[in-house]
Amino acid sequence: MYNIGVIGGSRPEKRYLEIAEEIGRLLARRGCRVFCGGLTGVMEYVAKGVSEEGGIVVGFLPGMSAVNGNHYLTVPVPTGMGYLRNFLIVRASEAVIAIDGSTGTLSEAAFTVSEGKSLVHIGPIPVRKSKENEGEVLEARTPEEAVDLAISEASKQRERDLKKDQFWSGTFW
Amino acid sequence: MYNIGVIGGSRPEKRYLEIAEEIGRLLARRGCRVFCGGLTGVMEYVAKGVSEEGGIVVGFLPGMSAVNGNHYLTVPVPTGMGYLRNFLIVRASEAVIAIDGSTGTLSEAAFTVSEGKSLVHIGPIPVRKSKENEGEVLEARTPEEAVDLAISEASKQRERDLKKDQFWSGTFW
Amino acid sequence: MYNIGVIGGSRPEKRYLEIAEEIGRLLARRGCRVFCGGLTGVMEYVAKGVSEEGGIVVGFLPGMSAVNGNHYLTVPVPTGMGYLRNFLIVRASEAVIAIDGSTGTLSEAAFTVSEGKSLVHIGPIPVRKSKENEGEVLEARTPEEAVDLAISEASKQRERDLKKDQFWSGTFW
Amino acid sequence: MYNIGVIGGSRPEKRYLEIAEEIGRLLARRGCRVFCGGLTGVMEYVAKGVSEEGGIVVGFLPGMSAVNGNHYLTVPVPTGMGYLRNFLIVRASEAVIAIDGSTGTLSEAAFTVSEGKSLVHIGPIPVRKSKENEGEVLEARTPEEAVDLAISEASKQRERDLKKDQFWSGTFW
Repeated sequence: MYNIGVIGGSRPEKRYLEIAEEIGRLLARRGCRVFCGGLTGVMEYVAKGVSEEGGIVVGFLPGMSAVNGNHYLTVPVPTGMGYLRNFLIVRASEAVIAIDGSTGTLSEAAFTVSEGKSLVHIGPIPVRKSKENEGEVLEARTPEEAVDLAISEASKQRERDLKKDQFWSGTFW
Repeated sequence: MYNIGVIGGSRPEKRYLEIAEEIGRLLARRGCRVFCGGLTGVMEYVAKGVSEEGGIVVGFLPGMSAVNGNHYLTVPVPTGMGYLRNFLIVRASEAVIAIDGSTGTLSEAAFTVSEGKSLVHIGPIPVRKSKENEGEVLEARTPEEAVDLAISEASKQRERDLKKDQFWSGTFW
Repeated sequence: MYNIGVIGGSRPEKRYLEIAEEIGRLLARRGCRVFCGGLTGVMEYVAKGVSEEGGIVVGFLPGMSAVNGNHYLTVPVPTGMGYLRNFLIVRASEAVIAIDGSTGTLSEAAFTVSEGKSLVHIGPIPVRKSKENEGEVLEARTPEEAVDLAISEASKQRERDLKKDQFWSGTFW
Repeated sequence: MYNIGVIGGSRPEKRYLEIAEEIGRLLARRGCRVFCGGLTGVMEYVAKGVSEEGGIVVGFLPGMSAVNGNHYLTVPVPTGMGYLRNFLIVRASEAVIAIDGSTGTLSEAAFTVSEGKSLVHIGPIPVRKSKENEGEVLEARTPEEAVDLAISEASKQRERDLKKDQFWSGTFW
């Protein structure tokens, strides 16, 4: 069971909403926990897809209250941090799928790669791996391909995490 | 469905572990989502209780990897922030139950009240409400009482949140 | 040159404001950088003291804008995190002085000790060291004693930090 | 006196280091407080420039200790958050200058624009303003032009902040 982040715009083109919903469904069927920004657009449709398949979808919210998350979230998580909550999605995830999106999505996508985690994107995104210890950037053409790639990359991330010592990875920290 | 935080020490007396497990069971039966620190002690036993009843329990982890959460978590959330993750538990919750605990628990309990949310405690804790806009501090003697009080206080918090304007509470922020 | 946090209430008794101002003056004369919450009360008077002696005082602000800091800050740092900014003060500091204060101050004071850093307090505060790796809790009766203790404890913290490997303490992280 | 962030890579081409140093000098002469990541490369050279002119430069550090900042910082601020500290630089600043840089810099640059603040860049960066409420993206060809643009944009940001009500901008929050 992997943690997969799905990021994207709050007002994308309609075809990206359909892609988001399908990605949500596929991730839920594959048993992944899904993390998103909890509001509208890609965030809402991916949550809808997960919800339709009875999966778990967590929405990190910019505001102080759980009541402002979209209706499909299993777990609304108010943070009161504004858009800083973007980066909690990345930290929570073992791989991230970016669907379209503007500067907010770009900041999360670039942070994903900077943190050493793989980014799978549908639609163009100007992020390139530029250092050895950065994550991979992989383009997918379909929701199926995006989910396959994300799960494959998450499993590699999981292996890397299991090799790290406990101090770094959290039991004593 | 309310968000309830449960906080407490990583190495408490055994009776507090039993209390934590029972609180987990009761919260799950009442349909609450439970938030905790995801590691050992109270964090593990409350997650065990929730898990036994098929509920949802989220663990905010101090480290970078999901693999270090305890085995009962529905959703392990690595944050990579160390003990700063304590305060994400408080932000996520509509009321918080404190079970025993030392300085880490005290920092979360005091922050809960400072954020205007109610704190229910089993076992002594030196936190007092001192301003009008701070949360209530309520002592419970049993797991049942703690859960009743926490849900009642969370419902009041939910009502307060629903009255706040959207700007404050998150849709536009 | 040490980083010293000074925490306390926004509306304390007048005598605590005088203590805060004197502590600010003494820390500045001893060449310390001072960190505070940047608003009113203890936060304003400690900044006033530092400012009178030409020292450096940083105010972590809960809001989004530098314009809301008090007039004595050398460096206003808006965070947009609300009271979560409390804990950035603790992270920035090598020792912390608590002057009076209510639940907000208590949350910072307990977090200080939980992070393994020493807490010096003037006025009563219900924080106790309870584990080996927690920081010390030291009571001071005068501003002079508080500043002496804080600098002495900060120098020990500095020595501990210098012994830690680079990975932990930050160059590669 | 404005808060200006300067972001860029830890191992950029040599000419970008010279640009960073010159930008540091110019910002200090114009009385700005400078915020950076506190480590090597652009972070070190901008701090060197500020330091040469006796200005104030703050370095937000990824690790837990002040000892790992570069030698030119006026105020080293350990955060213990890893690269999440990138976004504190953006929150602290009224305008941001990006000099070269890879995915880490890109994440900060995109977040700047997403937060509604202006980004001035020397060297190419794939960030575009795409919504009304996002910040401007302005290219500069010289350090002088970068500093002029950043100060001009920071003054507009300051005016916007002064018009916001207190609740939003921080006194009561």
